[in-house]
Amino acid sequence: MRDEVNARLDQLLPDSDHHPASLHEAMRYSLLGSGKRVRPLLCVLVSEAADGAGRSFALDAGCAVEMVHTASLILDDLPCMDDAGMRRGRPTTHREFGQATSILASVGLLNRAFGVISEQHDIAPAIRSRALEVLSEAVGSNGMIAGQEIDLHERRKYDHATPIESVNWLKTGVLFVASAHIGALAADLRPEIIGSVNDFARHVGLAFQTADDLIDRMGDAQSIGKDVGQDADIPTLASISGTQSARLSCEDNLRQAHNALNESGLHPAGLTALVDSIFGASLGSGA
Amino acid sequence: MRDEVNARLDQLLPDSDHHPASLHEAMRYSLLGSGKRVRPLLCVLVSEAADGAGRSFALDAGCAVEMVHTASLILDDLPCMDDAGMRRGRPTTHREFGQATSILASVGLLNRAFGVISEQHDIAPAIRSRALEVLSEAVGSNGMIAGQEIDLHERRKYDHATPIESVNWLKTGVLFVASAHIGALAADLRPEIIGSVNDFARHVGLAFQTADDLIDRMGDAQSIGKDVGQDADIPTLASISGTQSARLSCEDNLRQAHNALNESGLHPAGLTALVDSIFGASLGSGA
Repeated sequence: MRDEVNARLDQLLPDSDHHPASLHEAMRYSLLGSGKRVRPLLCVLVSEAADGAGRSFALDAGCAVEMVHTASLILDDLPCMDDAGMRRGRPTTHREFGQATSILASVGLLNRAFGVISEQHDIAPAIRSRALEVLSEAVGSNGMIAGQEIDLHERRKYDHATPIESVNWLKTGVLFVASAHIGALAADLRPEIIGSVNDFARHVGLAFQTADDLIDRMGDAQSIGKDVGQDADIPTLASISGTQSARLSCEDNLRQAHNALNESGLHPAGLTALVDSIFGASLGSGA
Repeated sequence: MRDEVNARLDQLLPDSDHHPASLHEAMRYSLLGSGKRVRPLLCVLVSEAADGAGRSFALDAGCAVEMVHTASLILDDLPCMDDAGMRRGRPTTHREFGQATSILASVGLLNRAFGVISEQHDIAPAIRSRALEVLSEAVGSNGMIAGQEIDLHERRKYDHATPIESVNWLKTGVLFVASAHIGALAADLRPEIIGSVNDFARHVGLAFQTADDLIDRMGDAQSIGKDVGQDADIPTLASISGTQSARLSCEDNLRQAHNALNESGLHPAGLTALVDSIFGASLGSGA
């Protein structure tokens, strides 16, 4: 299914020779790298858990969320933010295309995400509008952008776990929830089921960010494809509460995710397999 | 009506003490400066020209377009792009808030624009979805972002007027047309009338950008509130074809705009007054 996502991401962007080529090459370079595609998979698998209702919309909308995620990575890596040199095993977008083109590529991907959802003429406009509203809320002042601003300017001050979990929630959990939520909208699920799906995704998102912190402390750049250890002086759950505590928090969130999934009444197999594929290795091997 | 737009822009953004305050202060600082508000006025006046059908949606959607425009100005002014120090009579956003917060504020404004349109629950979802699609097309690979990329990397090479007009179209005309188009969607006008409205806006947009080039060559920073003369080594219509030719092109576009407005069959008074207020002074006084 990851191949299906990658093929669709490729189709949803203009070709690299579309004028101006530099902009579209940068958009494609950053989006079509070797991402895990967790967000689109989450969106599609929610639809599949509901017997595949709205699957083709869920695929495109999941790709839209991946565009938003990639847009945020481009910005995170900029010299004025994390100043990262490597991402997904390759030079970061600004190292390859310069800052100006990278910023425009990021904005272009965010904008294209809204375009992809809005142009689904076969889908009821009410579902599209709601999905766009959900996406905008996840990105904005109570979501990803706010999380990045807090992360940049306030995180060094933190000395206990609660605000870190709050930043994790804004930077990662909110977009996980949006992916699952939009998948549930695509399948036209009832509000109480959407609520369970969102709970599931929130716990997966929190577990994911905690696992990411653990990897950042313990991994090496070659195996994970991005700069590591650069957050060494920034407090994380792992550095404040200890690696063992972070691991327990991760496991607890995964347990709550499974409970929420059971409550939803949806077919759990696909989503459970996704969670296992994400967390099996990192929790099992200790990295 | 400009006061009404300013009041609504203020309401549509989170308060400046919404956490993280730095992000929201930067968004408000850049959006609530002393802009001409041409785009929202255009949107509202198209609705008024159709007897005020859909006016409140046109007001909010016009404010959304103004957010997109402001987002583009923040990026244009960055050190890696035009490196401008003054905008709308005040220090540019990055001079006041730093680059990272400015970039996030820009992305926050673009994202909020999509949110403002999607959350209009009183408006038919089909109209909202179509407006969001129009906005995304105007911003993306065939619009504003493409125009900025071309402007940054290719403009210095130009030695004749045609590609300059093409860049002007992407950077300014496309968003003018989107404003008018969304106003026409708000009023639920027929496709052929929307076509005339879009023609009107395209010619106004082309005239506007040409007038802007003329002002940039001839004005002073104090009277227009932003850096001038910094484009002196960049080819413009005025520098290539001469000031007189640029002025004639501007007048020709305004003539075609009036023709298109007449063809639409809408009440022309409000839109004509807007055009006069924009161009009366700059064309009349020779600056």
